[in-house]
Amino acid sequence: MSPSFDEKTIQLCVNTIKGLAMDGVEKAQSGHPGTPMGLSSIAFELFARTMRHDPKDPKWIARDRFVLSAGHASMLIYSMLHLSGYDLPMSELQRFRQWESKTPGHPEAHMTPGVETTTGPLGQGVGNVVGMALGLKLKAARFPGVFDGARVFGICSDGDVMEGVAAEASSIAGHLGLSNIVLFYDDNKITIEGETDLAFSEDVGKRYEAYGWFVQRIDGHDHAAIRGAIDKALAQKERPSFIVARTHIAHGAPNAHDTSEAHGAPLGKDEIAATKKAMGFDPDKHFHVPAEVYALFQARAAELEKDHAAWSEHFAAWCDANPEAADALDAFEARDVPADLYAQLQKAIPEKDDATRNTSNVIQQKVAELVPSLIGGSADLAPSTKTLIKKSGSVKQGAFDGRNLHFGIREHGMGSVCNGMALTGGIVPYGATFLIFSDYMRPSVRLSALCELQCLWIFTHDSIFLGEDGPTHQPIEQLASLRLIPNLAVVRPADGLETAAAWAIALGRKHGPTAFSLTRQKVPTVPRDAGFDPADVLKGAYVAQEASGGKPDLVIVATGSEVQLAVGARAKLEAAGKKVRVVSALSLEVFAEQDEAYKKRVLPPGVRRVSIEAGRTDPWRGVVGESGLCIGIDRFGASAPDKVLGEKFGLTTDAVTAKISAWLG
Amino acid sequence: MSPSFDEKTIQLCVNTIKGLAMDGVEKAQSGHPGTPMGLSSIAFELFARTMRHDPKDPKWIARDRFVLSAGHASMLIYSMLHLSGYDLPMSELQRFRQWESKTPGHPEAHMTPGVETTTGPLGQGVGNVVGMALGLKLKAARFPGVFDGARVFGICSDGDVMEGVAAEASSIAGHLGLSNIVLFYDDNKITIEGETDLAFSEDVGKRYEAYGWFVQRIDGHDHAAIRGAIDKALAQKERPSFIVARTHIAHGAPNAHDTSEAHGAPLGKDEIAATKKAMGFDPDKHFHVPAEVYALFQARAAELEKDHAAWSEHFAAWCDANPEAADALDAFEARDVPADLYAQLQKAIPEKDDATRNTSNVIQQKVAELVPSLIGGSADLAPSTKTLIKKSGSVKQGAFDGRNLHFGIREHGMGSVCNGMALTGGIVPYGATFLIFSDYMRPSVRLSALCELQCLWIFTHDSIFLGEDGPTHQPIEQLASLRLIPNLAVVRPADGLETAAAWAIALGRKHGPTAFSLTRQKVPTVPRDAGFDPADVLKGAYVAQEASGGKPDLVIVATGSEVQLAVGARAKLEAAGKKVRVVSALSLEVFAEQDEAYKKRVLPPGVRRVSIEAGRTDPWRGVVGESGLCIGIDRFGASAPDKVLGEKFGLTTDAVTAKISAWLG
Repeated sequence: MSPSFDEKTIQLCVNTIKGLAMDGVEKAQSGHPGTPMGLSSIAFELFARTMRHDPKDPKWIARDRFVLSAGHASMLIYSMLHLSGYDLPMSELQRFRQWESKTPGHPEAHMTPGVETTTGPLGQGVGNVVGMALGLKLKAARFPGVFDGARVFGICSDGDVMEGVAAEASSIAGHLGLSNIVLFYDDNKITIEGETDLAFSEDVGKRYEAYGWFVQRIDGHDHAAIRGAIDKALAQKERPSFIVARTHIAHGAPNAHDTSEAHGAPLGKDEIAATKKAMGFDPDKHFHVPAEVYALFQARAAELEKDHAAWSEHFAAWCDANPEAADALDAFEARDVPADLYAQLQKAIPEKDDATRNTSNVIQQKVAELVPSLIGGSADLAPSTKTLIKKSGSVKQGAFDGRNLHFGIREHGMGSVCNGMALTGGIVPYGATFLIFSDYMRPSVRLSALCELQCLWIFTHDSIFLGEDGPTHQPIEQLASLRLIPNLAVVRPADGLETAAAWAIALGRKHGPTAFSLTRQKVPTVPRDAGFDPADVLKGAYVAQEASGGKPDLVIVATGSEVQLAVGARAKLEAAGKKVRVVSALSLEVFAEQDEAYKKRVLPPGVRRVSIEAGRTDPWRGVVGESGLCIGIDRFGASAPDKVLGEKFGLTTDAVTAKISAWLG
Repeated sequence: MSPSFDEKTIQLCVNTIKGLAMDGVEKAQSGHPGTPMGLSSIAFELFARTMRHDPKDPKWIARDRFVLSAGHASMLIYSMLHLSGYDLPMSELQRFRQWESKTPGHPEAHMTPGVETTTGPLGQGVGNVVGMALGLKLKAARFPGVFDGARVFGICSDGDVMEGVAAEASSIAGHLGLSNIVLFYDDNKITIEGETDLAFSEDVGKRYEAYGWFVQRIDGHDHAAIRGAIDKALAQKERPSFIVARTHIAHGAPNAHDTSEAHGAPLGKDEIAATKKAMGFDPDKHFHVPAEVYALFQARAAELEKDHAAWSEHFAAWCDANPEAADALDAFEARDVPADLYAQLQKAIPEKDDATRNTSNVIQQKVAELVPSLIGGSADLAPSTKTLIKKSGSVKQGAFDGRNLHFGIREHGMGSVCNGMALTGGIVPYGATFLIFSDYMRPSVRLSALCELQCLWIFTHDSIFLGEDGPTHQPIEQLASLRLIPNLAVVRPADGLETAAAWAIALGRKHGPTAFSLTRQKVPTVPRDAGFDPADVLKGAYVAQEASGGKPDLVIVATGSEVQLAVGARAKLEAAGKKVRVVSALSLEVFAEQDEAYKKRVLPPGVRRVSIEAGRTDPWRGVVGESGLCIGIDRFGASAPDKVLGEKFGLTTDAVTAKISAWLG
């Protein structure tokens, strides 16, 4: 499997990678040349000798994955993909960092074949490595013989290992013994502000040993050492591998070598010429790839194609021998859900009124039965978030057939690991915590939206009504803030039917994440009008109660636990002769996707509007208009029992009715 | 200094602490009894024997600080403060978790005397410990003889040490050699989901050794061991101390002992009675403190008062000997700024047009000259965020007289450390990074607002106009999202004058943080009308250009780099016969605080409005009204040069003018 090359050709390849990095950044007059140069030897050993992938079929399900967590070194991955024979022609390398090129400033998974994940926000790539390795283990346990042996290779930087998200994810990986990880740490001692010892003097290797990783320390420019370390890493059966590779930024550049200036700016024409000369290259040639280099990678690609063909033969035999498993695998990879999912979930709705977190857990059991792709867990809050899959076991080191993950008190790590699981394919991961702690994992939530991943973020304890835990735990701005993230749908159900709809919506959104907002406290079932169509709930907002006579002179829009306040206020206002419609708006993003006619039917123009939500009011201005009334909370919460808080914050039926009456005049 | 007590009285104290925790949670029927019980011995040794504080003067500037990072164990700190003699009567302990009590569910610094910081969101307290220890070192270096010897004691939990923010902050502490930290880790092997080995198997002690800490491992219920470990920790001269204390949750409770159920729910009447019986207490007495216990703490308080008096004598002598330094200390602690600050900053504005990050750095130099309290740094982006104080050096291990901090690539750690510095008193900390990475530190930004801290968050590269780095680096929703945090002012200046105003606003907001939003790219000076009053800029929004004739039929509101688009569009629209006013709205929060008359003068009711900002449009609906036009960006960004992005996203003068014209009809 592992080919041998002569030293001269290896050096030629390494120099070519350096040259492409310098030229790409110089042409764009923007980017990061030094890190790709420092990583050229490691990248060569990974792409030319180690990784089991197929440039002709970037989506081969059993491929090894590669993650460049140090996403700013993007010219490295583009160069390697180009040389390896992926559909990334030289013309794209020459359009580095240009509008709609396949070579954006940081690698973007949905833009470029062979780019497994979007990196740049530091630390996230490490979490993705962990998530992909976990995902492959989970899939291997479900479909033995298909994914076995698939590994995840990663390269991370000083910045990555300083970030807490990487620390959290690495601790999870050590705990689970994800032996299919080989993570290189580019220890180049240089950051943007200067040498790392300005801010960074810890023993990173020792830290990873503390996490339970197998740690090696090598010279990152010594090919024999790199090969040796990879071999030892791949022999590990119980521990993920961390390879501390001492490298030099801008390796080979006479003056830029080992300087922080080489991090984030072009080296300049003169230094590039000097570097090329020192490497024995023609300084006047740009984006130059010697024929021997292409030849080497073509030979490698041919080998890899054979490997893939052998796997395909094996896989075909597996499918023949296991026809049911093969069908299940297809459905799993496609993240299939039954066509009548919503109808089935409606049947699962418990009869008694309960907190939506509890109702959600009941419905989740049905989802788990119908959708094997659903696998997830909580950041040590499962008894509170109510997110366990009851008929399944916990995922543990050496036992990956379970569906319940225990992320520990590591929200951000959970986010990045879930993203990695989703990127593996087939898995619909869910990560659960309190809504307030969505702030802890916000960068991962954003990336799930940017990468168009079907992640389910289950946030409970979604308002001041969680009570005594107080302002540090009570969300005020979190709902509005999540709604601002493009391509994220936020769903805040009011009762059992809406919770079933939330799951149906989330499982139908295959190209974007969904955030659930669920209550800690019990909520009543919404008393919907006779003749109401449950399908309307899937539209994000609907008329729950029509004004008597059918012609409202007031529309109250509410979400989640505040729908009951709208219902209560409506009863009192109608008794006082007003004509009041109640609209439950479980998802403003889903509602925004509906046609104009439906939207106008639900929120008729010219009719006065009130919004009620136990959070920031300003964002509701877009729904109720400048003359509307927004009822909510614009200060931090407080510690007290939930009923007391309702009174103090004016969120009782009486208080809401009084506010609306005063405003109506 | 260190008193000795007989073992029987010690046990009585420890049992009393356990009793108060059980009774407080039971009465509230809400809270966390098990952890205070497990920590009772450690808390006793800290409060009764070790810490140098004065319950009669909780704000004594040279006191030792105590941080309960495991904020859910709040009954522990309330009990200790009560017993120690702080102004926290038993009646408040009996109102645990009730409306406006001084004993909220999680400790809140602004609610309770003796509570140094607000904890509950896990990991943040560890960052605060680091920030306070750093703050005390910074102050000791500036005022030698005043703060020497002040230390920070902390207790953290499994949850704290799993969180990335604590990892980041702990690495900073090790790097800086903050030997004035003694941090206990409550290693009780229990989390909410069950035993920690469900998710947590790393060697935490070894990890802290890797950070450069002095690590000890003890039995957390063995008083001699606790005392010995504290003594060794306090003897450290170059390393912070981490004490891994093996404890048992609900220690002393016959059945709840070592169970995850004891974490977050009352033990119940029967178990409490059984525990009290086992401790030799009367099960029918609640909130009971034996006379010997009060006596012990009263004796300790008397000793501490003497210590404080001795320090005061020493301090008075110091003031006499150093009258200038004494005045400087007063000004420092008060975070004084000159009355004519804004005028002085205006004189510092550079003449040439530049990026606001560059202009801000010029003004910051003047601020640094006028306000010694300003101390801060960046998350390894100083050359990009432009936040160095040029005439000052870097803070390093053993050298704390500098003003430039290097937080490394640890935004979240930076946030929690800055909060800790602010909590130390006197310091106005600033933390800088790219606006997109405000997401990484959002929980700390929120806490700075909740704790009413004067932190300055300097966010640069504040729109798609940062260019090639692409969507992972381009803020879209971040500005709107920050504006949602209560008590945070967001300021997005358009040019030099507004940048000076931003600094003046931030330095004037003593009870809340300010977030700066600064450009990477060059922006022109806003061509303001003659007769314009610079004082109006401090009002958050002002008329930069009046409509010709003084009666606008259109108001364009813009912020930051988009003010130039408003100015450009106005010129074209006025040329076409429209009457257009340009309002620059650098801070919507500050503008909201103005009187109604001013607000109406700037945004006259009934006049059509347009907003322009390179971010989410929906939140502007509240400013422009439902019939207004919001120009901005509602999708993720893209990698390309900034000029190309301006064209593609419709944010050029021509594109904006065309949109407005079409909308005007």
